[in-house]
Amino acid sequence: MSDVIAYLNAHHDRFVDELFELLRIPSISTQSAHACDMVRAAKWLQQRLEGLGLDTEFISTAGHPIILAQSRMLANKPTLLIYGHYDVQPPDPLDKWLSKPFEPAIRDGRIFARGASDDKGQLMCHITAVQAWLKTAGQLPLNVKFVLEGEEECSGHSLADFIQADKSRLACDYVVISDGSQLRPGTPAITYGLRGLVYMEVIIKGPAQDIHSGQYGGAVANPANVLVRLIGGLHDAAGRVSLDGFYDGVSRIDPQERKALADLGCEDDQLRAQLAVDALTGERGYSSRERMWVRPTLDVNGLVSGYVEPGAKTIIPAQASAKISMRLVDQQDPQAIKESFKKYFTEQAGPGVSVEFIEHGQAKPVLIKKTSPGIQAAQRALEKGFSAPAVFVRSGGTIPVVALMAQQLTKEILLIGFSLPDDNAHGPNENFRLADYHQGQLSCAYLLAELAGVSR
Amino acid sequence: MSDVIAYLNAHHDRFVDELFELLRIPSISTQSAHACDMVRAAKWLQQRLEGLGLDTEFISTAGHPIILAQSRMLANKPTLLIYGHYDVQPPDPLDKWLSKPFEPAIRDGRIFARGASDDKGQLMCHITAVQAWLKTAGQLPLNVKFVLEGEEECSGHSLADFIQADKSRLACDYVVISDGSQLRPGTPAITYGLRGLVYMEVIIKGPAQDIHSGQYGGAVANPANVLVRLIGGLHDAAGRVSLDGFYDGVSRIDPQERKALADLGCEDDQLRAQLAVDALTGERGYSSRERMWVRPTLDVNGLVSGYVEPGAKTIIPAQASAKISMRLVDQQDPQAIKESFKKYFTEQAGPGVSVEFIEHGQAKPVLIKKTSPGIQAAQRALEKGFSAPAVFVRSGGTIPVVALMAQQLTKEILLIGFSLPDDNAHGPNENFRLADYHQGQLSCAYLLAELAGVSR
Repeated sequence: MSDVIAYLNAHHDRFVDELFELLRIPSISTQSAHACDMVRAAKWLQQRLEGLGLDTEFISTAGHPIILAQSRMLANKPTLLIYGHYDVQPPDPLDKWLSKPFEPAIRDGRIFARGASDDKGQLMCHITAVQAWLKTAGQLPLNVKFVLEGEEECSGHSLADFIQADKSRLACDYVVISDGSQLRPGTPAITYGLRGLVYMEVIIKGPAQDIHSGQYGGAVANPANVLVRLIGGLHDAAGRVSLDGFYDGVSRIDPQERKALADLGCEDDQLRAQLAVDALTGERGYSSRERMWVRPTLDVNGLVSGYVEPGAKTIIPAQASAKISMRLVDQQDPQAIKESFKKYFTEQAGPGVSVEFIEHGQAKPVLIKKTSPGIQAAQRALEKGFSAPAVFVRSGGTIPVVALMAQQLTKEILLIGFSLPDDNAHGPNENFRLADYHQGQLSCAYLLAELAGVSR
Repeated sequence: MSDVIAYLNAHHDRFVDELFELLRIPSISTQSAHACDMVRAAKWLQQRLEGLGLDTEFISTAGHPIILAQSRMLANKPTLLIYGHYDVQPPDPLDKWLSKPFEPAIRDGRIFARGASDDKGQLMCHITAVQAWLKTAGQLPLNVKFVLEGEEECSGHSLADFIQADKSRLACDYVVISDGSQLRPGTPAITYGLRGLVYMEVIIKGPAQDIHSGQYGGAVANPANVLVRLIGGLHDAAGRVSLDGFYDGVSRIDPQERKALADLGCEDDQLRAQLAVDALTGERGYSSRERMWVRPTLDVNGLVSGYVEPGAKTIIPAQASAKISMRLVDQQDPQAIKESFKKYFTEQAGPGVSVEFIEHGQAKPVLIKKTSPGIQAAQRALEKGFSAPAVFVRSGGTIPVVALMAQQLTKEILLIGFSLPDDNAHGPNENFRLADYHQGQLSCAYLLAELAGVSR
């Protein structure tokens, strides 16, 4: 094991250079203009894994390609499936970046680039750890499979379709996913809960084109007025979502869990400072951490209508649209919530407008048992990799494929993130600490040993 | 007079070509990138008026230039001040135009271009009428002054400042403004009422940058959620504006006026067809015409926040903003309404966000007596120009400078528009009928004679 660690220490700079190569590819899965970049990123990873002597495969899909790789399968050894995604969020707003999103730069010990933490940097931790084992021990202590997808950020279906069509290809004892963050710098964490998601776009259409707001204003339904009235009606005064049936399946918070979450410490002051807001706020009766991890939400992610350039233009817009995402917990049913959402907008829009929807994906919430042998092994690996105790956390985010994997592949899903809460994933100046890139690699290397050593 | 009319008939094609020249200049006053085009349009008009032998002046202002011109002043003759504006609205959405907005094209007997009807085509009616008099009779039957401004579409202050600083320059007996439309094709109209305006932009600011809606959603005030809640709260279920004090100064509709407006005929079916909406709707208890002309409104003209490109992005936006215009009637006070608007947003925004405003101008409502000699002369001129009876109408629109002129220059303000209700002013495919361009010119020529003949 010490040879493995020494190898990772010796090759740190080279692994940073390699990550930079991958970060330079603008693999934005939601924008079809970047379809070729998606293929470039997938092939880069395939080549990288091929170079380690793994059997690889480039899977073409209806969306973006999937890369599979696996080590020589040994009987009597457990199999670990390593998941990662090579697609990234769009980089806008571009003017807020201090360095260009696809020209990685190091400042203050951090790598700045779109995808640095989410998820290219984290998936490279696993690749480099596998490399360190192969180059020093000559073989892995267990069987390893990689599945790297390109539709995590666009809520695509291709990996889900692939799992459902041929789940034997991904058969495994454990799945490890590193696509999240530590609790705070130096406190590694194992995530046992993910929120689910329903992401809808609603478009209110009125007059065939923008019309003069003086000439017609007052007599014609204004799609922007209608849109804000409808979305404005989706929360009550207590900050609860007032969509019909929204809380069906949401449990009351367990007192033991409430205590465990409180024991992690209150970080409201840091959060306020980090986000530069004067106050945190949300559903009445819950702490910030509970609001982010245990409670469901409804957030407007984008809004556009009419004239948005500088100055004034007196029009009634022809249409108005909003992108709205809902985060789900416990037994909330994405399908039922989607139907309730559509029903509300369709029934409440009123005369003079029509309503259209675009569905941008959905995922069920996930909860994992903290007591399983795999989770225990992951905890030991993190503690060795970071030289610090690891804690149990939930995440407010969503990894859509996790729910499906837990159903189809194995209950032993290990969510261990190496990033930090202030990594600006999805925003401008996304970053990944060099120290965490390295300790992530060490943790991945230890994880292979710990899982191999678990009695089965 | 018949020579004047013959001259206009003979030069119709040439006057269309001249209008095309002016329409090719993208004089968009709200966009500073077009500052040079503003000067080009102003100089084009100055040169045109200079060519008629008028004394002209190019007035530089803090905003866009004003062009003044006047005929040789004769004693014992009344003076008519002709107002026009050479600035135009932005042309977006560009993809909805069938021909380019600044490359005028004729289809179906209409000139399509931004500014064709609002207001370049209409102000050219007056210039060509003055030309016809000068070229045939050798002199005008009364004194004429022109004032052509470039800040009508951007709610600028320069003309108001100019009037207040030196109103003797614009001293006159009558003002004529052609910046509106007929009641319907072949039914010319005199407008005796204009709505006022308050145009505000409100910006809700939250986190310093866009943040991950999974990671933080639920614990942080989402500026887009806040914005839609606040704007959504500005109308009640009856379609009335619920801003505090909004209806102060709004009179109950006069039964006689209600009858006169109803006698103009109901055009709801045509309006529905023209706008391609399934229903007209608005404040409960009023007809469409009353809603457009006699009642105040609040309309969202633009909305933008967060991710607006195709696909999905899971962020809480750093900010959200809306452009909102309110049309005012009777004695509503723009200043008081602006203050109420700001108070509402500031007090109701709640924790975790800040609120900023940009003021995009304001104007008082205007009502003009139908019985004055000038109005009667205008009615005769329109009836001769269009060979059809002229009716009295109101307009839902706003010409900000009219209230000031009525206060500072003369009560005899003649609002005679030559365009049509479906001219798409402010929208894509703005147009002006060739027939109306010509009959507008005839009407302007008759107006000079009719006003000169009025006993004073």
